[in-house]
Amino acid sequence: MHVPIVPYGGATSIEGHTLAPHGGVCIDMSSMKKIKSLHVEDMDVVVEPGVGWIELNEYLKPHGLFFPLDPGPGATIGGMCATRCSGSLAVRYGTMRDNVINLQVVLPDGDVVKTGSRARKSAAGYDLTRLIIGSEGTLGVITEVTLRLQKLPSRSVVAMCNFQTVKDAADVAIATMHSGIQVSRVELLDEVQIRAINMANGKSLPEVPTLMFEFIGTEAYALEQTLLVQKIAAEHHGSDFVFVEEPNAKEELWKIRKEALWAGFAMEPDRQAMITDVCVPLSRLAECISVSKQLLDASPLTCLVIAHAGDGNFHTFILFDPSQEEEQREAERLNHLMVHTALSMEGTCTGEHGVGTGKMKYLEKELGMESLRTMKRIKAALDPNNIMNPGKLIPPHVCI
Amino acid sequence: MHVPIVPYGGATSIEGHTLAPHGGVCIDMSSMKKIKSLHVEDMDVVVEPGVGWIELNEYLKPHGLFFPLDPGPGATIGGMCATRCSGSLAVRYGTMRDNVINLQVVLPDGDVVKTGSRARKSAAGYDLTRLIIGSEGTLGVITEVTLRLQKLPSRSVVAMCNFQTVKDAADVAIATMHSGIQVSRVELLDEVQIRAINMANGKSLPEVPTLMFEFIGTEAYALEQTLLVQKIAAEHHGSDFVFVEEPNAKEELWKIRKEALWAGFAMEPDRQAMITDVCVPLSRLAECISVSKQLLDASPLTCLVIAHAGDGNFHTFILFDPSQEEEQREAERLNHLMVHTALSMEGTCTGEHGVGTGKMKYLEKELGMESLRTMKRIKAALDPNNIMNPGKLIPPHVCI
Repeated sequence: MHVPIVPYGGATSIEGHTLAPHGGVCIDMSSMKKIKSLHVEDMDVVVEPGVGWIELNEYLKPHGLFFPLDPGPGATIGGMCATRCSGSLAVRYGTMRDNVINLQVVLPDGDVVKTGSRARKSAAGYDLTRLIIGSEGTLGVITEVTLRLQKLPSRSVVAMCNFQTVKDAADVAIATMHSGIQVSRVELLDEVQIRAINMANGKSLPEVPTLMFEFIGTEAYALEQTLLVQKIAAEHHGSDFVFVEEPNAKEELWKIRKEALWAGFAMEPDRQAMITDVCVPLSRLAECISVSKQLLDASPLTCLVIAHAGDGNFHTFILFDPSQEEEQREAERLNHLMVHTALSMEGTCTGEHGVGTGKMKYLEKELGMESLRTMKRIKAALDPNNIMNPGKLIPPHVCI
Repeated sequence: MHVPIVPYGGATSIEGHTLAPHGGVCIDMSSMKKIKSLHVEDMDVVVEPGVGWIELNEYLKPHGLFFPLDPGPGATIGGMCATRCSGSLAVRYGTMRDNVINLQVVLPDGDVVKTGSRARKSAAGYDLTRLIIGSEGTLGVITEVTLRLQKLPSRSVVAMCNFQTVKDAADVAIATMHSGIQVSRVELLDEVQIRAINMANGKSLPEVPTLMFEFIGTEAYALEQTLLVQKIAAEHHGSDFVFVEEPNAKEELWKIRKEALWAGFAMEPDRQAMITDVCVPLSRLAECISVSKQLLDASPLTCLVIAHAGDGNFHTFILFDPSQEEEQREAERLNHLMVHTALSMEGTCTGEHGVGTGKMKYLEKELGMESLRTMKRIKAALDPNNIMNPGKLIPPHVCI
């Protein structure tokens, strides 16, 4: 008998990665939370998969280092590898793909595989590290991770600017990227999201599309970049450009973005959120968000848009009552339309949340059957009995 | 009958990637050299595999963009993908792994696979893009590549500094990386390499270990970084720190590094070079080079060391006469000892040149048999008849 195995990390993923549609054994990785060895000089750290990224960063802080990915607060390093996560800092530091040096993985046959050395770059054989990152527990269980770390920046500036339209805001994000300025964060919040933040925090921010930036580096550099972006924003009808350098003021301003999701929930506390995640080539971002906003604004459901705009990646929170079948259907319809809009623009059905069970149905349109067949061949080669997290990532109709 | 297929790009690789140990058909990709579509706003370009990186950069220059990898001059984009190449700019922009958005690949069964969308990031399924990058033609033929581009920097500074020991020079490279300064290049040349450059160009540079830097960014930033590194160099007994900002002066200075290999050959024109390529965690670089230098300096053969020091990656050119069996054996002995030194320091047997036939024998020590077995399973799943570039990358003794 072949018993399915479902690895279970922080369980913050939202596409059904940790469901057990075929039953089986769930392996809770949360007790494997040792930080095994920190190499300050090499700027890397070896950890067990159950370590959370927030606790890791607390551990690293006294050493002047940090790990630059910031998904949901409960996420653990193993799960972040498995879903190829990213977050608001990916525009500067890349995604999980770019920040893992080596993995230890237990394959379905019990083989314990080391995917790399501890060198920062290597051309030694197939890139098993990257094959496991994003494989969502379907190829093996991650038991050790070597992460590349970054120096905590000596200076940072946080800035905010208002726009009359989402298109203007997206255009500024695009122009900023084109200018060669290395922002560390550029986040777009639509007017509904700002309204939610005002309601949740008793604030009175102008309820218009808003961009938030973070610039890091040396003192001269952070300020120089801020002023360049201020100029770009002004050229695109931006108003009320503010920037702060004082630590408490920065934290206060950035809190707005950090609490966006919770503010959204607080708007309609009896409803749940369906969260979509698409990513398009940068030039299509303004159009993709604008088209999506038309759909969303025409819906009876409340929808909030928030984007990692420098990567062309955006999310929508669609608030719906799961007990109302009609609302659930409407939420699904909106989600579906937005994914297809992104795919029609050479984009992806998921920028960072992964496939799980929720996005399987879009993979064929995005990548083609040949690509899915290749994935299934790899899966069958490494997991011939299909015991690792079955029913996820590869659509069931794919034949090899 | 199963006929081996050997894809052939610019043929600048040096580990035997394009040999045909089992005979077969060589597919010359050099006629597939169309630049298919440039997306300036998205900062990406779709090209055929036979396009050279130098001609691509000439094409991109008027658009203010460039592709930031700089291997040997004749290298083509397809081959650069296949060998997971990098070069001197990898310390700033990453390797081929980090700069390819999407591939089209013809698999051995004729399936034409699209590995991704044109979005900059995606969590949609197994990372087939990265699986193909570095697979050295053993999984399929790359027929189209979408590359991520970078903005040409508005300013750059080139600097040079001398040291009494290789260790001091390496330590400055390490300290620079730790300081959080984003160098775009940091190259270490040993005293033999500088002597070769003096001889080839009639120069009189001090024949001591030397570091060369490039800093890019805005005006204030490039200069600020230069001065910070000048300070670090002074703390490690660096002398004669010079930096130039004027375009001709920069080109003149950087030419020294660019012509290092040819200067090496010119030292002993009747000899060939065996070129090694290892990479270690940054903290071990000084020690790894020092240990290697002891071996090299004790050898009757002339050996030159040059390092992409910010990545912990270094090369040695060992000059030998291939008609003298003894010299060949000595060159192989040195190569072998250096690889083992790197492996004993948690490094890799190849930072950027790839495995081919030359480095196969070291993979088991570096990654373990379980890892090689996993690679072979993937190979067998996608190429059951072993027609794609057989006899490369996976050691013949690996059984699945």
